[in-house]
Amino acid sequence: MSPFTATDHLLMARALRLAEQAAWTTRPNPMVGCVIAHGDEVVGEGWHQRAGGPHAEVFALRAAGERARGATAYVTLEPCAHYGRTPPCALALIEAGVARVVAAMGDPFPDVDGGGFALLRQAGIEVAVGLMADTARALNRGFLSRVERGRPFVRVKLAGSLDGRTAMANGESKWITGEAARADVQHWRARAGAILTGAATVLADDPQLTARPEHGQFLPPLRVVLDARLRTLERARVREGDAPTLYLHDAALAAPCLEGAEFATAPLGEDGRFDLHAVMALLGARGINEVHVEAGPTLCGALLKAGLADELLLYIAPLLMGDGARPLLAGLGIEHMAQAVPLEVVDARRVGKDLRVLLRP
Amino acid sequence: MSPFTATDHLLMARALRLAEQAAWTTRPNPMVGCVIAHGDEVVGEGWHQRAGGPHAEVFALRAAGERARGATAYVTLEPCAHYGRTPPCALALIEAGVARVVAAMGDPFPDVDGGGFALLRQAGIEVAVGLMADTARALNRGFLSRVERGRPFVRVKLAGSLDGRTAMANGESKWITGEAARADVQHWRARAGAILTGAATVLADDPQLTARPEHGQFLPPLRVVLDARLRTLERARVREGDAPTLYLHDAALAAPCLEGAEFATAPLGEDGRFDLHAVMALLGARGINEVHVEAGPTLCGALLKAGLADELLLYIAPLLMGDGARPLLAGLGIEHMAQAVPLEVVDARRVGKDLRVLLRP
Repeated sequence: MSPFTATDHLLMARALRLAEQAAWTTRPNPMVGCVIAHGDEVVGEGWHQRAGGPHAEVFALRAAGERARGATAYVTLEPCAHYGRTPPCALALIEAGVARVVAAMGDPFPDVDGGGFALLRQAGIEVAVGLMADTARALNRGFLSRVERGRPFVRVKLAGSLDGRTAMANGESKWITGEAARADVQHWRARAGAILTGAATVLADDPQLTARPEHGQFLPPLRVVLDARLRTLERARVREGDAPTLYLHDAALAAPCLEGAEFATAPLGEDGRFDLHAVMALLGARGINEVHVEAGPTLCGALLKAGLADELLLYIAPLLMGDGARPLLAGLGIEHMAQAVPLEVVDARRVGKDLRVLLRP
Repeated sequence: MSPFTATDHLLMARALRLAEQAAWTTRPNPMVGCVIAHGDEVVGEGWHQRAGGPHAEVFALRAAGERARGATAYVTLEPCAHYGRTPPCALALIEAGVARVVAAMGDPFPDVDGGGFALLRQAGIEVAVGLMADTARALNRGFLSRVERGRPFVRVKLAGSLDGRTAMANGESKWITGEAARADVQHWRARAGAILTGAATVLADDPQLTARPEHGQFLPPLRVVLDARLRTLERARVREGDAPTLYLHDAALAAPCLEGAEFATAPLGEDGRFDLHAVMALLGARGINEVHVEAGPTLCGALLKAGLADELLLYIAPLLMGDGARPLLAGLGIEHMAQAVPLEVVDARRVGKDLRVLLRP
């Protein structure tokens, strides 16, 4: 039998929704929500808003005050046990006199990793773990990917026609999707730690690649240009705005000094193209949880082929462009149906006149 | 101000739902529903089930009996005024003593075309026309296309991958869409008067092209093979089953005698391909309201290019097949974005693991 009551579920769901408020602001930290309640009476709640700022538990305990004593604290992630930029939340919960802690999941971050639960239990607090764990994992799939796999969660954004084309043979491509879809993309950009593109896209489109959601605060994502031979530096729009820009290039080249730009080297494979696993490890090491890819068919195809595309965000415009037009993806090297890449539709909806399909392997 | 009350709307909606019951059985006649009511009390209802059988009004009047006197009759289409296979419904309504007739739309069929309304009005019955006319037109878009444009409503069914591919370069294509999508297709086949394909598809796939819905009665659709040079006759599956099969061929060839097959000639254009407008006129003249096309990229592309594809029924499998695979459509001859074919999403939903998108120009 489940150790969790209906009230437990309700309040954990509330904590998860709170956590989500920070989707655009909390990185590289995980999103965390906390609800403190006596039975179904909520006496305090909060969420972790920004790295370096107070954790969710602190906001909730502040709101609860004396009423935290004897209460149940619902947390979407294991309370921290270490002195980071803030003191450990496990201690704060103990000091406040909380009687029971319900956590959706443990925190695999090495400095925590069970230590928070251990502290609470040592203090005689009842700890129950695993309530709505799938939802909690989904919430922080970027953070978890970085901590557990050493690389970011990679979302590849694609936009094409019904017949799977992204541009005319002559390169003409504006605008395939409508305004609503283009505005929607900004929300996905805003939640990513980095927006990744390739040299070909910078040369062809001179994109700015900033996040421009209509409202809401967000941290400007890092813009990352894969530019082995540093061929794109004259295309300056990708360095405009507040967001930093990182060029990854071949170690054989010296990095120039360029305002608003940072340079790092990444290894190339035998084919002269970047080792994309190494690129992702590098971005993970920089604290990037989610990478949002907006690139051409070659780079997107290579990420898929390398097994690095964790999610496809595909906008389909209700348009036929014909079989002479350019393909959605290139270089997959598929010759037989058995080699076709099967995906699962996670979400499908209409966005303005277009369709948006979210897919995972 | 609208002459129609909320009750009028409710009962017309009911009549429209009744009419729809006959989607698989009433062709070549239109679907028609009838509700007879005093205020919001329904005293009789019915729908036209089969060509040659009683019309909707007759079923409804039979059910209403004496209570039709002084009632309002809601009909989704103008009552007929001519002696066809059954006596005119306008007269039946008059004889039954109906006081008011509310019709969604007039019947453009030449033998009716206002005559039904005229008869009713001459008899002193109040007649109001136009309630939910758009829905009523949509219900019978096949019938209306045939009567008003002299050709069937053409629905082109396509199935492809996310990247707009239908088969590997080597022709391999089974199965792209899942079981649920393939079962869904049977419902669309069942409502069509004809299932149209090309010689290339018959040669490649040897399809049966019968409608096999899981349940429900239906008239077997005519199977139509565009086979100018009669190259496919050895592929016999398309002649199996109850449904008739019509081969359209070049007049230069003599029609063979073949069990279960019928032959007719259709003109070819200068390019040696069928004049598809002539083909559709021919099918319209045979009483085909809706044509369901299941063909290869060339024929589907040609129908689109000729402006004959009134609707696209596109199944998208969550699969990437790569840019070496065969395209959804061929021969559109598009070189610039301005030539791309814009469509409107009429309906989009998930069918099993796949997506189904219904589109119109």
